[in-house]
Amino acid sequence: MPKQVDHRERRESIARALWVIADQHGWAKTSMREVAREAGVSLGQLQHYFSSRAEMLTFAIEFTADQTSRRVAQGIAALDHPPHPRDVLRVVLVQLLPLRPDARATSRMNAAYVLEAMHDPALQQQVAVGLRDGRAMVERLIREALSRGQIPANRDPVIETDLILSLTGFAPLLELEVIEPEAALAAIDQHLDRLFGLVP
Amino acid sequence: MPKQVDHRERRESIARALWVIADQHGWAKTSMREVAREAGVSLGQLQHYFSSRAEMLTFAIEFTADQTSRRVAQGIAALDHPPHPRDVLRVVLVQLLPLRPDARATSRMNAAYVLEAMHDPALQQQVAVGLRDGRAMVERLIREALSRGQIPANRDPVIETDLILSLTGFAPLLELEVIEPEAALAAIDQHLDRLFGLVP
Repeated sequence: MPKQVDHRERRESIARALWVIADQHGWAKTSMREVAREAGVSLGQLQHYFSSRAEMLTFAIEFTADQTSRRVAQGIAALDHPPHPRDVLRVVLVQLLPLRPDARATSRMNAAYVLEAMHDPALQQQVAVGLRDGRAMVERLIREALSRGQIPANRDPVIETDLILSLTGFAPLLELEVIEPEAALAAIDQHLDRLFGLVP
Repeated sequence: MPKQVDHRERRESIARALWVIADQHGWAKTSMREVAREAGVSLGQLQHYFSSRAEMLTFAIEFTADQTSRRVAQGIAALDHPPHPRDVLRVVLVQLLPLRPDARATSRMNAAYVLEAMHDPALQQQVAVGLRDGRAMVERLIREALSRGQIPANRDPVIETDLILSLTGFAPLLELEVIEPEAALAAIDQHLDRLFGLVP
């Protein structure tokens, strides 16, 4: 058992080294050699944990998604119980956007994966499955809120789900400082308040 | 004069070759050598038009923005006169999203520039200026529509501008086929109809 844990921990620390390299030098330069150097291990040691660059990238994408899910779960646990679906959606959006240092790291990695996935069918499959799962989770939440009357009955669950997802479009605008974090949060709050019929 | 035109045309055909390389192999591999090969010119000829890779990228970004502006202007010219601001915003969004082959090429290049700009301060400046200009144009349009009573008076122009910009978040979702073009258009139409008070 301890050996399993150590294996997992070492893979995670390698994934973090990959984030640093990809963030500093771009995705194309995240070779196994560069990642090994950043992680402070030999190339041979790295290859003990990942037999190929593709395997390392796949693990890093999963690890990024896990880190985001973990922060979302922590944010939801900090809400009143039972949590209001409006607040749950806000936690999800805040954790997907580069508003804080930890979310900034995963948001940048997501942007890099998405771009890379456009040129790589295997990666596209992996990234798309993750995004579709996220979309399904949001739609479930919206349908439940509709059935409980928390969202006005004239709202379409598919359209409202897609509009929530589109709010992740704030990520590049925040990264390039085209809009400020406070402005993004004000827009998200306004959108959510309208969806739940809290403002006209 | 013909010489000037030829120079411009040659630079544009090189920018198109750059799009092909960046789209197929990713941004990091768009070296001057690769772009010259794709454009069917020698490296020396390419260097006659662009003295450095940075100069070539800067021109390609400007050319991408010009192509998008040109399509937006054509779309607006095809509307009733005077055009309704709701329809103008729809044309802008449709031309920014990868819904048609020509917009798909520029949308992909925009995604690549934005990611690259996160690692390159000079590029960041260039890309951010373009995005801020686009944001200012949308805000002007929304303020005019508010002053004419086309948008309900209780709407905040800054928040509404940012929400319009966030709809560009559909771009990666369309690229990775997480949502279909029809769904993105339905969500955009619903958002615009609500902004202009055409639906509750």
